[in-house]
Amino acid sequence: MGQLRRNPINGQWVIVGGDSGSKSPEEFEGEKPVRDEKKNCPFCPGNESKTPLEILAYRSDGTGSWLTRVVPNLFPALQTEGELGKSGVGVYDRMNGVGAHEVVIEHSDHEKQLADLTDQDLEKVVWTYRDRIVDLARDKRFKYLLIFKNYGFSAGASLEHSHSQLIALPIVPKSVKEEIKGAEEYLEYRDRCVFCDMILQERREGLRLLDENKYFMSFCPFFSRFPFEVWIMPREHQADFGSIRKEESGSFAQLIRATLARMKKRLRDPSYNFMLHTVPLDGSGTDAYHWHLEIIPKLAQIAGFEWGTGFYINPTPPEDAVRWLKEVTV
Amino acid sequence: MGQLRRNPINGQWVIVGGDSGSKSPEEFEGEKPVRDEKKNCPFCPGNESKTPLEILAYRSDGTGSWLTRVVPNLFPALQTEGELGKSGVGVYDRMNGVGAHEVVIEHSDHEKQLADLTDQDLEKVVWTYRDRIVDLARDKRFKYLLIFKNYGFSAGASLEHSHSQLIALPIVPKSVKEEIKGAEEYLEYRDRCVFCDMILQERREGLRLLDENKYFMSFCPFFSRFPFEVWIMPREHQADFGSIRKEESGSFAQLIRATLARMKKRLRDPSYNFMLHTVPLDGSGTDAYHWHLEIIPKLAQIAGFEWGTGFYINPTPPEDAVRWLKEVTV
Repeated sequence: MGQLRRNPINGQWVIVGGDSGSKSPEEFEGEKPVRDEKKNCPFCPGNESKTPLEILAYRSDGTGSWLTRVVPNLFPALQTEGELGKSGVGVYDRMNGVGAHEVVIEHSDHEKQLADLTDQDLEKVVWTYRDRIVDLARDKRFKYLLIFKNYGFSAGASLEHSHSQLIALPIVPKSVKEEIKGAEEYLEYRDRCVFCDMILQERREGLRLLDENKYFMSFCPFFSRFPFEVWIMPREHQADFGSIRKEESGSFAQLIRATLARMKKRLRDPSYNFMLHTVPLDGSGTDAYHWHLEIIPKLAQIAGFEWGTGFYINPTPPEDAVRWLKEVTV
Repeated sequence: MGQLRRNPINGQWVIVGGDSGSKSPEEFEGEKPVRDEKKNCPFCPGNESKTPLEILAYRSDGTGSWLTRVVPNLFPALQTEGELGKSGVGVYDRMNGVGAHEVVIEHSDHEKQLADLTDQDLEKVVWTYRDRIVDLARDKRFKYLLIFKNYGFSAGASLEHSHSQLIALPIVPKSVKEEIKGAEEYLEYRDRCVFCDMILQERREGLRLLDENKYFMSFCPFFSRFPFEVWIMPREHQADFGSIRKEESGSFAQLIRATLARMKKRLRDPSYNFMLHTVPLDGSGTDAYHWHLEIIPKLAQIAGFEWGTGFYINPTPPEDAVRWLKEVTV
């Protein structure tokens, strides 16, 4: 029998497992990668003129060729210019779509996906995220910065060359607000961080723990919404991703690479999304919140039940998912 | 420039429109229908033994052959037997997956989809929903009943023969709770139903109104999360779908058919989901809430931004969507 499981952070319930038993990696269909031609790829070295003006780049010493590169999104969801212009329209409220929408080109090599990078190269990607966060945090119109990645067609990617995105928002998104509200209630009631308590329990029980190193751990959450969902969190309490130290960034990069490499090997290179959740720019929730990266492979369709309820049917319990992911060496 | 729009019911923000302009129906890709063989179809007349024991059926007078038929889901997400067994696991909470999961076979003809039915046949589907809701409401373990439909592979359907589903849940789902909370706050503040206010405004402005008849109206919400999203609502305040009267059910059926026929014609037979939102079984929110059907065609992928924020990028403003949907006669 399946279980209903509650996410203690935002109160979200998940149905884990089901009557047909635990769904194995072999039961999920393979997927076609997004294709685009290397010679026309706007993210390849030599084609820099095909993107809007460069915001930031890390270059290798001496040669001058770039390793990671940040550019504005050519088709931004939000515009950097203008004021919010908040107004009411009868029963409705609106404001202008002011924000920022950037693309982080994770590596100059068209053939290398994030899972294929060295830990050292992936550390540069992490540090690029951090630099952009610190810079954009200065714009007072922005309330929240979200880093996310879409890999593969089913996850919403439209270009093959390895990249992630950054969106600066003029409001704090609902799902982050909900997490912070839940974390603050937990802190109020127990005087402890709910994420820190989860870390303690996961390390003690070991049932859902995937990897850990000096500063970080990865695990399949008790309340996983999706098959093979993995979260990566700093082991010590840290609310703001922007305050990550250089020595920690390598530790974080190592677990991102290990997790993505496990998924690529064991789940046959699935589409996936990842999202980095951190505190809002006004620092609200700093005592209660704990930044983390959520990685969700796209193995099943989201259907009417999920849309109608806001909770999820996950056919693969995390305790099984973690065992399958551990079968491969990375 | 795109807009941020707020759903006044649950507080959800949506980005509507964008820099690349309004996305037209022609810009969305066509889709392949789910295929299955008619002779092996478990939902076809003659194959009744392939489903679990029938719960309900409407038969044509005289002949004895059925028109609509309700059976338990062969692979249920929830089990009807057992107790909830609520317990804590350290920081987490859990309970058993007790509920009901039924399939409504909407028509005996394998070749006819919901959009192809006559208004009279679709009225029988609506009345079947109503009958199951009234029956399941008697089980005191259940807190919420959700009717939903997945049509097409991208919307999560696995069988082609026209069907919808009903899930009885031991908890009130998050998305419904959020809607009720918002509606109650609106009622408290303004002493009016927020849905009724929306109806007044949509009828007055006419910008997003799709169709209306004696008892119902359909429209593309101001805060549409998805391109060509359509809601159908009773024009008079009615919180509980289970209390729909016979004369109203024909009116409701007519707008479901018209909406689905418009989508089929104008959007080239897209995959879609629909979800019927009504009050919880304990009647909470009856003054504030207003039942409605949400129909969302699956034209774009949900990506990291949506998962990371809980709000949505919708490239087609509802004011445009409604114009395109009205171009076809149905």
